[in-house]
Amino acid sequence: MPEEKSASSKPANRFCDLIGLHFTEMEKGFCRTELTITDFHLNPYGTLHGGVVYSLADTGMGGALSTLLEDDEQCATIEIKINYLKSMRSGRLGCETRVIHKGKNIAFLESVVKNPEDKLVATATGTFNIFKMVPADLVK
Amino acid sequence: MPEEKSASSKPANRFCDLIGLHFTEMEKGFCRTELTITDFHLNPYGTLHGGVVYSLADTGMGGALSTLLEDDEQCATIEIKINYLKSMRSGRLGCETRVIHKGKNIAFLESVVKNPEDKLVATATGTFNIFKMVPADLVK
Amino acid sequence: MPEEKSASSKPANRFCDLIGLHFTEMEKGFCRTELTITDFHLNPYGTLHGGVVYSLADTGMGGALSTLLEDDEQCATIEIKINYLKSMRSGRLGCETRVIHKGKNIAFLESVVKNPEDKLVATATGTFNIFKMVPADLVK
Amino acid sequence: MPEEKSASSKPANRFCDLIGLHFTEMEKGFCRTELTITDFHLNPYGTLHGGVVYSLADTGMGGALSTLLEDDEQCATIEIKINYLKSMRSGRLGCETRVIHKGKNIAFLESVVKNPEDKLVATATGTFNIFKMVPADLVK
Repeated sequence: MPEEKSASSKPANRFCDLIGLHFTEMEKGFCRTELTITDFHLNPYGTLHGGVVYSLADTGMGGALSTLLEDDEQCATIEIKINYLKSMRSGRLGCETRVIHKGKNIAFLESVVKNPEDKLVATATGTFNIFKMVPADLVK
Repeated sequence: MPEEKSASSKPANRFCDLIGLHFTEMEKGFCRTELTITDFHLNPYGTLHGGVVYSLADTGMGGALSTLLEDDEQCATIEIKINYLKSMRSGRLGCETRVIHKGKNIAFLESVVKNPEDKLVATATGTFNIFKMVPADLVK
Repeated sequence: MPEEKSASSKPANRFCDLIGLHFTEMEKGFCRTELTITDFHLNPYGTLHGGVVYSLADTGMGGALSTLLEDDEQCATIEIKINYLKSMRSGRLGCETRVIHKGKNIAFLESVVKNPEDKLVATATGTFNIFKMVPADLVK
Repeated sequence: MPEEKSASSKPANRFCDLIGLHFTEMEKGFCRTELTITDFHLNPYGTLHGGVVYSLADTGMGGALSTLLEDDEQCATIEIKINYLKSMRSGRLGCETRVIHKGKNIAFLESVVKNPEDKLVATATGTFNIFKMVPADLVK
């Protein structure tokens, strides 16, 4: 899979490829996702679409949590709340995500999105579900 | 603007074009956004990326609120919380968004995302800020 | 337990008694909680404290979900987000709560708080965890 | 006002008095609220009611933000999301709240609730509205 752009050992993330979102750091319970704003990321007002910022957080949460999972486990977002603090028109965004608490079935995570000047762009908190992976040949 | 794909009178939404998200209904305080899932929308598990579902809600909230704004007003997301109830691998998603409360500076909105069988995929609630638009020639 | 004020078959809810919060309806997947505002519920501005409104929703979610649990199951709040739409100084508040989705371990609920004129005071969405009850003699 | 129990210069907070919630630190953009769990704070399962933990955060957010307001300004909760990480049956809770961002009309705050062993009990994020106070003689 030579076009794989993620630091994760997981298969390619098609949606992340589409919007130009990359993992740039990944360690136990932590990861960093980044994205350079282009015209493709803008809303009708000419500012960064909220869905782009959100995707940095949601993807980062999945990535950070995946570093703590067993080989036969996977995870899914239960809920995320994101607060926007600063609008953006261009430049590079970095999102740091940490697993704050991990139980057997549920984990709680926090993401912080900043601009290149280290100013807060958004913060998000989320709950993820952890469950045993369904073998691929059982998935309809 | 012949490439405009939105029912809104607003300029093209580049991010929505990128991910294939369309407005299919818009009336006072309400709108409907839709998207057909393709491989480009999937995460490494082969299921729909949460950022896609979120974008239906965030875009829908901006669209529904824009129907109630004055010509010199614009809006921005303050916060959105989304809860995921069902994962998806293919098919078409529809998101209905309603303005529940609109004050002078702040509005509260709700979005409901469903699959073609009318099953709940996600619900979101959000707060938007309403403010006077900055004339384009004053924006750096 | 003659002082029991709740319509639930559960033991007394001490905190609800303290703040005057009552269950007034309970059916499968639904309940109604109510409270009459007194001076004890006010904040320094002389308006209803947000914690009171929140308690109507949190208690209501626990109550509505409890109607769908097995005898050996209990539930706990994972997260709740509440949006306030109207401040109050006096009068009676009613909160209707519905279980929107119930899985094996996780449930999603919505609460709507209204004043006597049926105007929205607040809305809340929450995620609850469902788990097997620990026998009382095993609790330290 | 000799019965004032709050470190704030604001009038008495009746609801905080009712549930035994105190301000123990207050500086620019920060405050600490505390509460000792008694039987009055328990739910039917014998654990701490979520409304108590929430009230520590909501009250703390109002307190922390009030340190940054002008004399003729007041604030109100727009929304708070709280995640619960640990249940409690007894002991003392401390909640630290920080103003993360303050605009002219809107502020964003974070609260962290911990037990005496410094373990996370809950975290909350909230948005507050800031507005000019209505003179008391104009309030109906």
